[in-house]
This record gives sequence, structure tokens and C-alpha cells, in this order.
Amino acid sequence: MEYVKQRRTIRKYQARDIEPALLNELLETAGRASTMGNLQLYSVIVTRDPSMKKQLAPAHFNQPMVTEAPVMLTFCADFHRTSVWCEQRKATPGYENFLSFLNASIDTLLYAQTFCTLAEEKGLGICYLGTTIYQPDVLIDTLKLPQLVMPVATVTVGYPDEHPDQPDRLPMEAFIHDETYHDYTPADIDRLYAYKESLPENKHFVEINHTETLAQIFTDIRYTKKDNEAMSATYLAALKRQGFLK
Amino acid sequence: MEYVKQRRTIRKYQARDIEPALLNELLETAGRASTMGNLQLYSVIVTRDPSMKKQLAPAHFNQPMVTEAPVMLTFCADFHRTSVWCEQRKATPGYENFLSFLNASIDTLLYAQTFCTLAEEKGLGICYLGTTIYQPDVLIDTLKLPQLVMPVATVTVGYPDEHPDQPDRLPMEAFIHDETYHDYTPADIDRLYAYKESLPENKHFVEINHTETLAQIFTDIRYTKKDNEAMSATYLAALKRQGFLK
Repeated sequence: MEYVKQRRTIRKYQARDIEPALLNELLETAGRASTMGNLQLYSVIVTRDPSMKKQLAPAHFNQPMVTEAPVMLTFCADFHRTSVWCEQRKATPGYENFLSFLNASIDTLLYAQTFCTLAEEKGLGICYLGTTIYQPDVLIDTLKLPQLVMPVATVTVGYPDEHPDQPDRLPMEAFIHDETYHDYTPADIDRLYAYKESLPENKHFVEINHTETLAQIFTDIRYTKKDNEAMSATYLAALKRQGFLK
Repeated sequence: MEYVKQRRTIRKYQARDIEPALLNELLETAGRASTMGNLQLYSVIVTRDPSMKKQLAPAHFNQPMVTEAPVMLTFCADFHRTSVWCEQRKATPGYENFLSFLNASIDTLLYAQTFCTLAEEKGLGICYLGTTIYQPDVLIDTLKLPQLVMPVATVTVGYPDEHPDQPDRLPMEAFIHDETYHDYTPADIDRLYAYKESLPENKHFVEINHTETLAQIFTDIRYTKKDNEAMSATYLAALKRQGFLK
């Protein structure tokens, strides 16, 4: 438990490669994560080739981790392999639908997070790239993903070359509810977000971005309604393209 | 790493309760999982009350774990709390869209799986209930989930009262792809699924279900096209109801 308590996302990596035997052990052991009907509805694309990293970088807004990390993993919801197996066994697959995308995505994220926890236990550092779901088409084309395979999460992995401060987290009462959801009063919100809003780095963000509040950084700059709506349309179109949505 | 290698899903639990201090430590430590913009886009509803378990059981096909486990956790994608904070801080939230549901779901599943890995390290057993996404409306109503909160995963937790055989997993080459997705030849499929199909318990399933192949158990009995399509419509309607889809 201690290494999870001490964890932080790592964005800078040593030039040192990850030993193939270690990476394989992590990828294999993560396969012990829970999975629907033991179907393991995921595939992982392992990127080590510098030219592939260069091709994938624009899909991730050219964040430097993509080309600097020794390994990048793209975790994909995959009902393709299972469907090929079914067809080869006189069984008619019925997985061209949204529920199957959700089932496969859940399997995929449980696998991905098990991998990350194990990797950190072994002294590696990881960073999730939220960009994976922003421009899925670039990933589908570059990684040659067939029908019923959708990119869901990307993680860069390597030996840490930084030791950043640990970020704050909300107090537990902010996200744990006993028996039913308990909605938040204005006083609750003030109390739960007080520490986050008091942090010098967050005050600094507000200052340099010329916003009035920290929340405005999220709504007006980082995760805007306009961007979210455009990317929602893009991802839904990609789900149709990959056969998960009619 | 060893306890992940040895893990198995636990469906039978001792009557023994989970110490509140331990459960809290696990729920808090899991909050160290990666999260988008450090927003922690999730909520967890903790069910201990027997009458609540009884109300929730039908949504989970009355699987006995629901009423027998000391604790059930419903992990919800939550953009409600963040939106309330934004509104209280003169920021206009733009999270009533599909991308925001995906972002919150990813956060939620990384949190859920970190919790499960930590719980197992501490000697607890867990079981994911795939049923959570089948009848989301029952959960939304019973757990009183507001707009922009969607149930994504449920886990039962307790001290193990069984030690089942460890299930098989596909060989790693079935789901790991170097640089690009490598599609499966008929010979690949035969090789990758040979062990699973050879297992006595799977042969027994085929026999008692009077199917010709193991794959037909999945397509014709467990996860049928008809059910998947009906539940896809249900979940998409629930996403609309909760405000994540227009």
C-alpha cells in the first residue's frame, strides 16, 4: 500500500530502456485483473520505435513524454479478437453495439490500471495521456486498429528522471457517500475545495491566466464546453466507424 | 506483484465485517490513482445497510454476493460535484456531453481498480458485478444519483470464505501487439484459444448447455446480440437522463 500512498505521475524519464523481461512480466501479470466472462476484452499496442512515436505525437498534442519515454502503451477496448474466435467456431457474435464498447472499455481500464500499479511497485514511473480519446482517428489509422477496436487510454512508462511534489487530493468525504448520494451544500463545496484553492501553485495559475477563480481555469482554458462538444462528436463518430454504434 | 499473480475473484465471504478504519484507508489511498486535471471525477456509494442491499439486488440479477458481502461499492462517474464547484465559483461548466462521461468513467475505473488491488493486498476478496451497466436506472433511483452522475462499476468486498481454482488466461501474445495491431489468422485463433477450449470445466459447460462450441456459450447464452442491443439502448437512454448525452 505504501508505494501507492507515495505515488506521483512521472513525465520525465531516464534514457534507460525498460528490460523486455520486466515489461513482459508486468503485461502478463496485469492479465490477472478482473475481466468480463474471462474474455479479456482488450489489446495493448506497445510503441518503442522512435518513428512510430513521432507519428503518434500529434494525436497527443506533441507532449514531450511521447517521444522521450522508452515505452508507450495504447490500451484498446477490443471485441474484434473475440468476434473472430466466435466466427471461426460457428458462433454468431453480437458485439456491434454500445454496451459491448462499455464492457470492453471497463476490461481495458482495469487491465491498464493493474499494469500501472505493478509498474510503479517495480520502480517505474507512468503518465496517463488524456489525449487518447480526443483524436481517436489518428490512433486508429496509425496503429491499424480493425473494427471493434477502440483506443481508450495511453500510458507512457520509464524509469523516473524527476521527483515532483505530490499533488493534493480532495478530502475523502468529497467523494465517499454512505448508502445514498449526498448532494453538496455551498458550505460543503467551500470546505472541500478550500485546501486546493489555497495552494500557492493554484493561486499562481489563477494569476498568470488572469482568471478570477481556479474553477475558471478548468471551464475557460483547460476543459472548455466548446472543445468537449467537438471531441464528443469526434469520439461518437469514431465509435460508429469502428462498428460499436449504429 | 506476487499477490496479483495469485489473485482470484471471490464470491463467498465470511460473516466478518470489514474494519471501518481499514475500509477508509483503502478508499483514501485509492484516491492517489491518476485523475484528469486532478479533478477526481468519481463518487463511491458505500452500501452496508441490509435493506439497501435488498433494494439493489434485483439490479444485479439477485446474485448472492450482493446481500452476503459485508460491503458493496458502487463506483460512479461524477461530473456533478465539479460542476457545482464551478457554478459556485463564477465558472460555467461545459460537461453535459459524451466526452465528459468518458473522462469521468476513466477516472472512476482507475480509482476502482486501485482500490481493488489494495484491498486484495490486505487480504480482502473482491468481485466486480458486470450487471451495473445493465440496469443503470434502478441504481440511479435507489442511490439517488443526481444529474451528471452515472454508475459504472460495482464491487462486492469482504474476507474470503472460499479459495476457488485460478481461472485460465489467454497467452500474452493474444493481446499484446508490437507497434501496430496484428490481425489474427485462423491458425493464430486455434493456437491462442486451444488451452481455454481444452479445459474440462469448459468442455463440461458445452456439454450441459448442448452447444457445439465454447464460443456459442457466449454468443447464444451469456452475452447475446439481443440482450446487448436492448441494454445498449437502456444505457444510452440513462446517459441522456443524467445529462451526458443530448
